[in-house]
Amino acid sequence: MKKELLYEGKAKQVFRSEVERQLILSYKNDATAFNGKKKETFAGKGRYNNLISAQLFEQLAGAGVPSHFIKALNETEQLVEETTIIPLEVVVRNLATGSIVKRLGFKEKTPFQPPLIEFYYKDDALDDPIINDRHALLLTDATDAELDQIKRYALKVNDVLHTFFQTIGVRLIDFKLEFGRNHVGEIILADEISPDTCRLWDIETDQKLDKDVFRQGTGDLLTVYDMILKRLEAVK
Amino acid sequence: MKKELLYEGKAKQVFRSEVERQLILSYKNDATAFNGKKKETFAGKGRYNNLISAQLFEQLAGAGVPSHFIKALNETEQLVEETTIIPLEVVVRNLATGSIVKRLGFKEKTPFQPPLIEFYYKDDALDDPIINDRHALLLTDATDAELDQIKRYALKVNDVLHTFFQTIGVRLIDFKLEFGRNHVGEIILADEISPDTCRLWDIETDQKLDKDVFRQGTGDLLTVYDMILKRLEAVK
Repeated sequence: MKKELLYEGKAKQVFRSEVERQLILSYKNDATAFNGKKKETFAGKGRYNNLISAQLFEQLAGAGVPSHFIKALNETEQLVEETTIIPLEVVVRNLATGSIVKRLGFKEKTPFQPPLIEFYYKDDALDDPIINDRHALLLTDATDAELDQIKRYALKVNDVLHTFFQTIGVRLIDFKLEFGRNHVGEIILADEISPDTCRLWDIETDQKLDKDVFRQGTGDLLTVYDMILKRLEAVK
Repeated sequence: MKKELLYEGKAKQVFRSEVERQLILSYKNDATAFNGKKKETFAGKGRYNNLISAQLFEQLAGAGVPSHFIKALNETEQLVEETTIIPLEVVVRNLATGSIVKRLGFKEKTPFQPPLIEFYYKDDALDDPIINDRHALLLTDATDAELDQIKRYALKVNDVLHTFFQTIGVRLIDFKLEFGRNHVGEIILADEISPDTCRLWDIETDQKLDKDVFRQGTGDLLTVYDMILKRLEAVK
């Protein structure tokens, strides 16, 4: 079913499938941080990201958020709709932690209500710099109306996933989304949603159940990704 | 007439005057760049900044832009209305150069039409980081309506000064403004407008007639500031 490799990123490979306009995302076992400056391989990580991401995209589909996700194919691969990615990293924050504390001096755990949306320009050579809305218009081909649509979807994703994660005892702190256009030009959610792209804290203990354990060297990545997947499977 | 020193910044001192709600800005001879990491003193620089800034604020008053400027008192001092500064650096760009080329990869001299407005959070310890509109709402006490008013004033300042500088053979490339509130809470333009805070290029030759000659060590600061003042005095 898998055909030629179209693209290889830091955490995923993209293959053509046998069906036109459908691609296969294959999740790798590589973990990277600090724009690729820290890198390690964890046997089994691809499986966690694939299965977790698949379940979250299914939740979002149920809530009416259109995405590229079609279905999981196996333990490490999923079928997705071909999408032209808009080079924006759309970050939604419920609580201040990480770069925003260091960069702007927000006190750790400052709540953002309504949630804070930030755009970063997806460009490895420039280190994904933070930008404002006008920069986004100048640096991408997105229109004003599309940026508004992207923000509405980002807040909707936050609403749905924040509530859903609560049911498994997890607090959604912040996350990164990517959007693109499908073949008829509609804006849809793309990329992945996983402990690689979300900050997820245990609701009782604040234990970090995401890639921060790797970034900061404070825990075992596979152990905490397994905790997320097990809790998700328990409510499936 | 000058009384106690209220505040000393990198380029100016602020003194109480004999009149309530009126302050004296005294321009220093210090030039700094890269958030104070490069520093030098130029005898006579304070005079240039004071006289140039005074003439530009007068132009803006004539065009209906409210500011803290009341009048020049002498060669290095001006009288201003007491203002509570909003900690934003408001940058307006007509042409890409400097940090925006390095940070976001815009090609040198890319024109921005309409002009690009950027907010930076005025905080030396954080190195004045760039922010988006929502950050500005969170980090300052400015309201949405006030941020809109600030943007409208910034564009108006650009219109007025771009046209005015053309009459003296100078192209206004970009500049930084600061705004604040007067005692009745109205938003007014504050700080200074000078070759310290504007990029000014000769219209024919693109020669830099601003602080970039000091930043980049490519020319004599006093010589180019003198060229700006002489051209301004010729049209006074």
